[in-house]
Amino acid sequence: MAPRPTPADKFSFGLWTVGWQGRDPFGDATRPELDAVEAVHRLAELGAYGITFHDDDVVPFGADTATRDRRIARFRTALADTGMVVPMVTTNLFTHPVFKDGGFTSNDRQVRRYALRKVLRNIDLAAELGAKTFVMWGGREGGEYDVAKDVRAALDRYREAVDLLTQYVVDSGYDLRFALEPKPNEPRGDILLPTVGHALAFISTLAHPDLVGLNPEVGHEQMAGLNFVHGIAQALWQDKLFHIDLNGQRGVKYDQDLVFGHGDLLNAFALVDLLEHGGVTGASGYDGPRHFDYKPSRTEDVAGVWASAEANMRTYLLLRERAAAFRADPEVADALAASRVAELAEPTLAPGESVADLLADRSAFEDLDVDAVAARGFGFVRLNQLAVEHLLGAR
Amino acid sequence: MAPRPTPADKFSFGLWTVGWQGRDPFGDATRPELDAVEAVHRLAELGAYGITFHDDDVVPFGADTATRDRRIARFRTALADTGMVVPMVTTNLFTHPVFKDGGFTSNDRQVRRYALRKVLRNIDLAAELGAKTFVMWGGREGGEYDVAKDVRAALDRYREAVDLLTQYVVDSGYDLRFALEPKPNEPRGDILLPTVGHALAFISTLAHPDLVGLNPEVGHEQMAGLNFVHGIAQALWQDKLFHIDLNGQRGVKYDQDLVFGHGDLLNAFALVDLLEHGGVTGASGYDGPRHFDYKPSRTEDVAGVWASAEANMRTYLLLRERAAAFRADPEVADALAASRVAELAEPTLAPGESVADLLADRSAFEDLDVDAVAARGFGFVRLNQLAVEHLLGAR
Amino acid sequence: MAPRPTPADKFSFGLWTVGWQGRDPFGDATRPELDAVEAVHRLAELGAYGITFHDDDVVPFGADTATRDRRIARFRTALADTGMVVPMVTTNLFTHPVFKDGGFTSNDRQVRRYALRKVLRNIDLAAELGAKTFVMWGGREGGEYDVAKDVRAALDRYREAVDLLTQYVVDSGYDLRFALEPKPNEPRGDILLPTVGHALAFISTLAHPDLVGLNPEVGHEQMAGLNFVHGIAQALWQDKLFHIDLNGQRGVKYDQDLVFGHGDLLNAFALVDLLEHGGVTGASGYDGPRHFDYKPSRTEDVAGVWASAEANMRTYLLLRERAAAFRADPEVADALAASRVAELAEPTLAPGESVADLLADRSAFEDLDVDAVAARGFGFVRLNQLAVEHLLGAR
Amino acid sequence: MAPRPTPADKFSFGLWTVGWQGRDPFGDATRPELDAVEAVHRLAELGAYGITFHDDDVVPFGADTATRDRRIARFRTALADTGMVVPMVTTNLFTHPVFKDGGFTSNDRQVRRYALRKVLRNIDLAAELGAKTFVMWGGREGGEYDVAKDVRAALDRYREAVDLLTQYVVDSGYDLRFALEPKPNEPRGDILLPTVGHALAFISTLAHPDLVGLNPEVGHEQMAGLNFVHGIAQALWQDKLFHIDLNGQRGVKYDQDLVFGHGDLLNAFALVDLLEHGGVTGASGYDGPRHFDYKPSRTEDVAGVWASAEANMRTYLLLRERAAAFRADPEVADALAASRVAELAEPTLAPGESVADLLADRSAFEDLDVDAVAARGFGFVRLNQLAVEHLLGAR
Repeated sequence: MAPRPTPADKFSFGLWTVGWQGRDPFGDATRPELDAVEAVHRLAELGAYGITFHDDDVVPFGADTATRDRRIARFRTALADTGMVVPMVTTNLFTHPVFKDGGFTSNDRQVRRYALRKVLRNIDLAAELGAKTFVMWGGREGGEYDVAKDVRAALDRYREAVDLLTQYVVDSGYDLRFALEPKPNEPRGDILLPTVGHALAFISTLAHPDLVGLNPEVGHEQMAGLNFVHGIAQALWQDKLFHIDLNGQRGVKYDQDLVFGHGDLLNAFALVDLLEHGGVTGASGYDGPRHFDYKPSRTEDVAGVWASAEANMRTYLLLRERAAAFRADPEVADALAASRVAELAEPTLAPGESVADLLADRSAFEDLDVDAVAARGFGFVRLNQLAVEHLLGAR
Repeated sequence: MAPRPTPADKFSFGLWTVGWQGRDPFGDATRPELDAVEAVHRLAELGAYGITFHDDDVVPFGADTATRDRRIARFRTALADTGMVVPMVTTNLFTHPVFKDGGFTSNDRQVRRYALRKVLRNIDLAAELGAKTFVMWGGREGGEYDVAKDVRAALDRYREAVDLLTQYVVDSGYDLRFALEPKPNEPRGDILLPTVGHALAFISTLAHPDLVGLNPEVGHEQMAGLNFVHGIAQALWQDKLFHIDLNGQRGVKYDQDLVFGHGDLLNAFALVDLLEHGGVTGASGYDGPRHFDYKPSRTEDVAGVWASAEANMRTYLLLRERAAAFRADPEVADALAASRVAELAEPTLAPGESVADLLADRSAFEDLDVDAVAARGFGFVRLNQLAVEHLLGAR
Repeated sequence: MAPRPTPADKFSFGLWTVGWQGRDPFGDATRPELDAVEAVHRLAELGAYGITFHDDDVVPFGADTATRDRRIARFRTALADTGMVVPMVTTNLFTHPVFKDGGFTSNDRQVRRYALRKVLRNIDLAAELGAKTFVMWGGREGGEYDVAKDVRAALDRYREAVDLLTQYVVDSGYDLRFALEPKPNEPRGDILLPTVGHALAFISTLAHPDLVGLNPEVGHEQMAGLNFVHGIAQALWQDKLFHIDLNGQRGVKYDQDLVFGHGDLLNAFALVDLLEHGGVTGASGYDGPRHFDYKPSRTEDVAGVWASAEANMRTYLLLRERAAAFRADPEVADALAASRVAELAEPTLAPGESVADLLADRSAFEDLDVDAVAARGFGFVRLNQLAVEHLLGAR
Repeated sequence: MAPRPTPADKFSFGLWTVGWQGRDPFGDATRPELDAVEAVHRLAELGAYGITFHDDDVVPFGADTATRDRRIARFRTALADTGMVVPMVTTNLFTHPVFKDGGFTSNDRQVRRYALRKVLRNIDLAAELGAKTFVMWGGREGGEYDVAKDVRAALDRYREAVDLLTQYVVDSGYDLRFALEPKPNEPRGDILLPTVGHALAFISTLAHPDLVGLNPEVGHEQMAGLNFVHGIAQALWQDKLFHIDLNGQRGVKYDQDLVFGHGDLLNAFALVDLLEHGGVTGASGYDGPRHFDYKPSRTEDVAGVWASAEANMRTYLLLRERAAAFRADPEVADALAASRVAELAEPTLAPGESVADLLADRSAFEDLDVDAVAARGFGFVRLNQLAVEHLLGAR
């Protein structure tokens, strides 16, 4: 049986996920609006520990201050009643038509200023609610036409915005870090900072790089055909995995936001193995929320919404169990050794060895029996088959 | 008529491009071996200014020193006879079976040491031939199975290798910079540093980041469905476009290496516009070789090889002309203004404006007529249509 | 300059194209509703000859009979006033939540019956308006989960529906044919009849296969990475190109519906060459409407809508000119001959030759100098370069 | 533990699979040649029941008759010694340079005639060895350049070839059927008959459609982002699943030919469920060989080859067990009912109901409470989660 989730598992959900009404590019809503307070209570009952939101999820765009305060107060009461936390907050810079060419990088300077103000206001709220991470998904930052967007100027503006926001957090004394969320396309033809790599590169140019990391999403990287586990590993390697969006995607197509595990299951197994057990390295480096950013399929009713929310957590916990068994299996240990997986952690040069030493080492080159080395098998398929069989619960 | 290429255009070709014999995963060679000396002469006649190569293109893998010296001497004579230069050299760490799990990041430490030695030797040759760029395509650095490769350890080893090589160049006093060439997959299921972004991010972690940039390839980014022009723009923005590989690719599939322009022609137009005229910005930042890394289709005979080589340059020059006409057209200037393209170069904050000032500016938020701003059209389609019509030579 | 479109060019537009308000999965409408009557007038002024629509584009879903009649009467007046025709009509079986699991193949039989009734009613209207083609895009026919849809039963129901509808057209004496529109995914994870091929195969199983053909859309095939020109050629080869949807798509990603030519321009050139001049064969087989099924980008205002509508037609006409010049160029004729393109139209067996004759022909096998034949180059790259240069208006 | 394969499981392997030496577009062979006789013995020991081959796998291209006879005799002895059968044979029309523009559809008529002769000869051998299926993968039938291939003429020639071959089989009295193997691209830019659908459509135009079916391959459909289970279901629906190629692919990229199950595991589960248990329908329609067409990764040595061969069968058997448990689970039965999966097998019209009756049924349209019907949830996510948990062995 699948284990039951508890707050210790640090599962969190976006309010917009269970709250998605099923409106898609070709269809109208199939479900009624979900009250934020109900969402908090139901998710708490299911075992989640946290809930996240865009400003507009809790307070309608353009609401007056009284409405805003009332909405937020009700939401806070629900949090207090359930013990749910808000580990992350984010700003909606994509739904309103004013953002049709982006927020921070719109060609229209008035829009850029407006976007900054909207985010600044929301940062205050995030800090007030105790959120530790502020996600920024720049879904509208990009374009469809190469001649219509000066990408270098756009990156200048993007950096200007992030530098300003980090400075604001520093000046305000907030305990808050930013997490950029890459995506290759949709809703724009090409989105800026399309992958984990591009966003990491961008961060290296910032004024406060320490305050900015990533919030990678399973499906977003897979929409570019990239290996999500590789992306997460590079993000961890650069100490930039500040948050994570778990969901499912079936290959290179539109953004599906399926339940976690309902996409590439083998990659999901390796991901959970990496997040929980550190993968082949044995040191994870991530202990933040396990955040689900998925959509309950449009075919589902309200009961289906909660069943799908639960499914995310059940699959995660099952994969955690399977990965633990995989790591504990002596046959796996043997296969890992045969595949020389740990040997990659050994530096290529010996301690104290210089380039001159390497050049002088005839056994490394001149006298190496290259064909003999080439003939050694790595046994990767056997090792992967052990992973598959553990995943299937067959060992 | 298409203009004729001259050395001033800085066109260069890989020796392995015109020399490709047509061996593919499902078929044997369709063309005879091409002598490197003939390649130099023929490319010079066609108007190229440079030729590049992998060590093994000029000297067979494992050749003895005498053979090596003889081969290199013949090649240098051809260069001298034609005035062709060698702007770039690269090392083959992928053909021999010893590299089946990679060079710098093979799980097998002996392979890693051997790979470093092979590169070090080739760096000496590059410097000797006056090359200014040393390309490193890590096509075998990667894996097929998530449990078989410790990606973080692999990145440690990759960094160890690049740090060692840059130090060697510094210590040797060579005037040589490195250019990493990203690729998402093929021949490995997932290659490390799969995109321009991932490689830029990696570079930011190096000991000598100034000595390491990129050699992006049109088809490689397009294999991940990414916009090549966006990638090049980010590389320029980070001052990392050290070299470029031009070719053609028809979407997300195997690596096609078609003639430049025989893939996504609109994107190629914008690319040439960016490289030559600085695109919308008007400042390119790239004046290195225009290097073609393509394959003459397997259906072609030797005459087809040279026709295809010529085709690359003709298309480039035609696109350069079209882009110049586009930039000079007053209607385009008008459309650019309507699209507010240049407005993006204007900082979002006014000179001297602080966050406090922005927060105090009610016209930016509280008093902004958001719906009125949202209603403004950007005119991007008209602008793009002007680009299409210039590309078609119809204006 | 681009030639101006006239009704003789048979350009038609979907009412939903210029009428698209810009609502996408992440954003609200950016443009006001467009009156159908205005659309008719504006498109007529721009040179289009026809307009097409879904039932719900003209008459709101669930409208009472009086409203319906009034709306249709106004629309007909506009047609009469402008001379615009309605060459095609289609039914919306995707927007209303009742169709969330499909129309003809919903697991819910009541939905299937309702869908049939909605289509039957709309067929009457199509016939009344003189439409010759009835398009059926089954965008909701499909699923996300392999265990939740019995695909074989779904195909049974799909066939039951199409057989019933064709019989109804026969019984009603309508001069109307059906055109299925394939799409691989979006809004469903996997759509039934995902490509031109699958739909052609399905048609071969129908009761009235002569009454059912295809309405392929550029972007839909390209979303599966398929060559649209190849698909159209196979549809023509099977006499099934009843209608066509022209637009632009930039590779394997979400459905972009860009302006025709703003995607893969080389493939668009070959497409127009095929539709207008019969391509390499010289016999087109298609003389139906050139129908644009695109979306004016969400960044555009109303002026941009009409500019984008015009852009579709201008590009088409320019490509038609370029293709005509390509076909008329003696150098192209020479290159086609060198590439043996016409030789493929020659049967492989000689007239009257039997298998026994072929087996007895030693020159075909035993005595053939295979290596000599293999050494012949096809000159494909030169031929393609001529196409590129004609496309660029450079010859 | 994984069950052990036996001949009753009907597992077969291509000789070229375990025999693949690891030559890829960027690398040389990593393994020695495998003797066909050894392959037969080893596969028999592992529990396979059959072996398949291309002519050139057993007899080198261009071998003289004596060599040919000797090779075949040795191979037959191995079959007799082990009891292994040859359920399928195929012809190599792709490796030799003479086929660089295809076999049946080369622009060069001499090549087409040669190709037919090569296939005819091989059909005799197939019949002699008792094969029941003759696979034809037209991997070189296609092109890279739209102007260089007359697709309609190519389809004429393809049909001419298949009609001739089927007639030959009829005339020869052979008990042999043909199975076309679709693939979208690689090694050609675009291959003719790129998907299951296109090939089914082509078959409907043939002289002997009953003798021609399909041999779909997991990875080939997934290279176009298509759902393999959907494709197989349509092939079964049209009674055309004559043979099947099982392997693994990780999305839209080059052809990976991984071990079965090492790609999209959820889809593999649904596939085995369909082949073995008939999926949701409960009637499979396929009882042919379970044929693995994979490549042991290039990183593996000879021991890894056999481990990988075994892995294919183990995973298949595990999935068969998991699918059986899924089908037997009462909770699954309950979820299937809630999802109305079986209701799709019920005709949309009642027995004897006419269109007129449907039109007269006010409960179907006029009086239907559309919103109430729309509000019903389908429960698909819960059902899929049950599949995931069964796949994980967690129920």
